[in-house]
Amino acid sequence: MSRRIAYQGIPGAFSHIAATAYFGNNHQFTGLPAFFDIFTQVEKAQFDYGVIPIENNLAGSVVENYDLLFAHNVTVIGEYYQPVRHNLLVIKQPQNKPTIELKHLKKVCSHPKALEQCTQFFRKHPHITPVVFNDTAEAAYHVASEKKKDTAAIASKEAAEMYGLDILAHHIQDNPNNWTRFLIITSIHREQDILAHDTMYKSSIMFTLPHKPGSLHTIIGIFANAHLNLSKIESRPIHGTTFEYIFCIDIEFHSHDYALIRDLIQQCTEMTNDIKVLGYYRKAHIKK
Amino acid sequence: MSRRIAYQGIPGAFSHIAATAYFGNNHQFTGLPAFFDIFTQVEKAQFDYGVIPIENNLAGSVVENYDLLFAHNVTVIGEYYQPVRHNLLVIKQPQNKPTIELKHLKKVCSHPKALEQCTQFFRKHPHITPVVFNDTAEAAYHVASEKKKDTAAIASKEAAEMYGLDILAHHIQDNPNNWTRFLIITSIHREQDILAHDTMYKSSIMFTLPHKPGSLHTIIGIFANAHLNLSKIESRPIHGTTFEYIFCIDIEFHSHDYALIRDLIQQCTEMTNDIKVLGYYRKAHIKK
Repeated sequence: MSRRIAYQGIPGAFSHIAATAYFGNNHQFTGLPAFFDIFTQVEKAQFDYGVIPIENNLAGSVVENYDLLFAHNVTVIGEYYQPVRHNLLVIKQPQNKPTIELKHLKKVCSHPKALEQCTQFFRKHPHITPVVFNDTAEAAYHVASEKKKDTAAIASKEAAEMYGLDILAHHIQDNPNNWTRFLIITSIHREQDILAHDTMYKSSIMFTLPHKPGSLHTIIGIFANAHLNLSKIESRPIHGTTFEYIFCIDIEFHSHDYALIRDLIQQCTEMTNDIKVLGYYRKAHIKK
Repeated sequence: MSRRIAYQGIPGAFSHIAATAYFGNNHQFTGLPAFFDIFTQVEKAQFDYGVIPIENNLAGSVVENYDLLFAHNVTVIGEYYQPVRHNLLVIKQPQNKPTIELKHLKKVCSHPKALEQCTQFFRKHPHITPVVFNDTAEAAYHVASEKKKDTAAIASKEAAEMYGLDILAHHIQDNPNNWTRFLIITSIHREQDILAHDTMYKSSIMFTLPHKPGSLHTIIGIFANAHLNLSKIESRPIHGTTFEYIFCIDIEFHSHDYALIRDLIQQCTEMTNDIKVLGYYRKAHIKK
């Protein structure tokens, strides 16, 4: 059955690649301008699912999406780790023309983060000027539409295919270990899947605590005593106050412990100010 | 005594503003291209201090700087909370000419994050096109040097003064609560200050733990049992492995507990794989 899936950006953006990798190609994918649009439209069931980045191993957590998860009536039903590979894309040359060479490039366009993650490349080729764009896929689109031989884009290989560009150099980022974790969200009113048998799951919860010694220790103890692993923990002050903190925790559990984890989260409810269970979803793995 | 202080970016960047706010104006401030340069040059004592952003309440932690703190022989000796205020800067008009009006603007230049944080402004003025730059101060410099009446920059009021620009609109960001926390670093070989009497301090530590239930709970318990507050906690997997995690913790303590905190951190050393004490420094406050 074909689903309506929303992501942020334009076709070829890493969010789009993650969405198709997670769901497969036989669905209707729509790029929206902002994360906020995904949340409000998934909430109103204008889309069946939304795919949002939540953290990158080099750039950190996407705080904005945590805030949106806390504020909107959506549930997390899955996660996906998307490797980030930066390639150098140039316009295709006709068969009888020589291919474009690095030494002829003058400009390379991409998102500032992508440009920054390719610092070694720019040091090795000081004749090339980096040009900032809002998005890697937008940079690829720009190169494809301008058709200039001296301008390249740093983007994904999927963006190369989508916009009919050639890959002049593969994997030009400094750090080959670069991934973004995406969460799959749906309306809170949508019926939840039953947990698969004998499989590892995660639950993500967000809660606020008074800023006083020991309060976090008590919460973490609930899961430690049940021998459950925390795969992520993060805290930050709320609205600039130093009195209350918001925490995000991911707990790993085996599907046969589903009743247990629900019970433990219930125990947390009694000790926290505000708490939101973002969802229960199958644990994914980081691909090498 | 005048100090040599390094920050990332060009004059008028938020890092520069934070550096002068922390140290005062009577020092020699130098903008370097990358965070890496600050660490290597402070490490070699080519600068007395470095000022680096470590987290923004809307954008999250600067993971790159945590990695650099873990890898380099530097010590944190201070923190500073810099409010982030986005203003709309335009070229100054001669006194006999009318001031530039919003309706005549065609382009507004800034860093993508700053543009994104002013979404309401662009919705209200759909005739204006956002143009991405590497840095807010670079955008201000561009407007000042191009001298086009239809182009503005989103940057700080300090950038306006520095580049001789007028502020057409103040505080145009969507969320008035926007701050960046900076850390002040120095070479590990530099003599440390003695703690001031009767003052709140923080210590930042980073350590790795095997990814197994309870290990974090034990560490946090060391501080909870001593009734010490954690003002920040964060975790992430190392090098894409799911087997080992790196944690960053900020512990608040009163100066009279300096011996105690050193003893507690020593206890952590016995339970962690790798541990690094980033420093002991006076606690700063978020300005409203």
